[in-house]
Amino acid sequence: MPIALPPHRCLSQPVLRQSTTTLSFETRGRGFIEITRAVGDWVRASGVQAGLLTLFIRHTSASLVVQENADPDVCGDLERFFARLVPDGDPLFRHRDEGPDDMPAHVRAALTSVQVSVPVDDGRLALGTWQGIYIWEHRTDRHRRDVALHLVGS
Amino acid sequence: MPIALPPHRCLSQPVLRQSTTTLSFETRGRGFIEITRAVGDWVRASGVQAGLLTLFIRHTSASLVVQENADPDVCGDLERFFARLVPDGDPLFRHRDEGPDDMPAHVRAALTSVQVSVPVDDGRLALGTWQGIYIWEHRTDRHRRDVALHLVGS
Amino acid sequence: MPIALPPHRCLSQPVLRQSTTTLSFETRGRGFIEITRAVGDWVRASGVQAGLLTLFIRHTSASLVVQENADPDVCGDLERFFARLVPDGDPLFRHRDEGPDDMPAHVRAALTSVQVSVPVDDGRLALGTWQGIYIWEHRTDRHRRDVALHLVGS
Repeated sequence: MPIALPPHRCLSQPVLRQSTTTLSFETRGRGFIEITRAVGDWVRASGVQAGLLTLFIRHTSASLVVQENADPDVCGDLERFFARLVPDGDPLFRHRDEGPDDMPAHVRAALTSVQVSVPVDDGRLALGTWQGIYIWEHRTDRHRRDVALHLVGS
Repeated sequence: MPIALPPHRCLSQPVLRQSTTTLSFETRGRGFIEITRAVGDWVRASGVQAGLLTLFIRHTSASLVVQENADPDVCGDLERFFARLVPDGDPLFRHRDEGPDDMPAHVRAALTSVQVSVPVDDGRLALGTWQGIYIWEHRTDRHRRDVALHLVGS
Repeated sequence: MPIALPPHRCLSQPVLRQSTTTLSFETRGRGFIEITRAVGDWVRASGVQAGLLTLFIRHTSASLVVQENADPDVCGDLERFFARLVPDGDPLFRHRDEGPDDMPAHVRAALTSVQVSVPVDDGRLALGTWQGIYIWEHRTDRHRRDVALHLVGS
């Protein structure tokens, strides 16, 4: 029965809107790059107070992870664990076009995440106290990594 | 050409809206807590019939997983597998501030998920017949775990 | 101050809308089925130019992964790695109702993803050049797998 409603009805609650962008980051070879601040700044600039932010990394040999941002040993230990779990140059692998770290990077990506969504509350990412958002570069060489962002909210 | 459209055009299809909340759960130490019902109740109370629910756990030593809710041996086997894959007290780890289960909890979190989104259909979570949503506590001690929810739909 | 705004204000920016469906796929037993084209076709048919697509697989013994779609050895190597990491018939497992590949399928699902969201840009999935979306069947037998889709955008 939309016709029966007054015209301003559509504004009686905040109208949802969306924003998108792609942020690019230079990695330093295997390891973690924290992107929490860059992503949070973009959310703030959008003016959205409540909503949902989605990050999607457009690569198959790097991941997005949410991990502890307090003790740097956590990221170091994650790297050491994955290096042991998925060893470079494993003779099991046939896909070696780009070297001994090529296929292990794909396996690490499959074991972690290509995408993460974080609620936005009060204009800020609703991360826990110790949570940061990271790009985890799995290749030994430096790469430019594109992260597509989508924000819906009001 | 928005001006040419009649004012009620904005209601000719259901207006999307969103809801957010944070649910807190007490875990019993390492293992699984099913939260399907609590989350489904909140979705039902929102009145949203079709949409997307996102759950985000605000911690780095517990996960969100969607797993079989029929045979409890599945969760037991998952726990046994991960305990063998990521052993407590592994000398590889340097981050041990909170004990031998501290860093393994972070690794388990990286290997599983911090976030999951589930479509809502007919006012209910569109889970498969055997799917339940769980918090997987990775620490041996009990913890209070906060799960941020975001729902968009109509 | 909604009453002060002109009635057409609600159309001064595109109104967000949503679409949902469920796509079903027949797998051929353990391995990968690429679904990028089927999903992209559905997004195109919706007319949404910018937004967010979410895929959710309604099963606990198959996964959704985004992986390289160029060299088929990548999927082969992923399968070989996971077969070694989570061996069929492992005596650790108690849940064996449906055979030696039953519990390993659940573990593989926990190690990968039940859901993935991909931004939509210019009417197309914002995947990287080498990214494809796959169902990863973890059971040795063929199965029909349902993937629930949710699209929000304009």
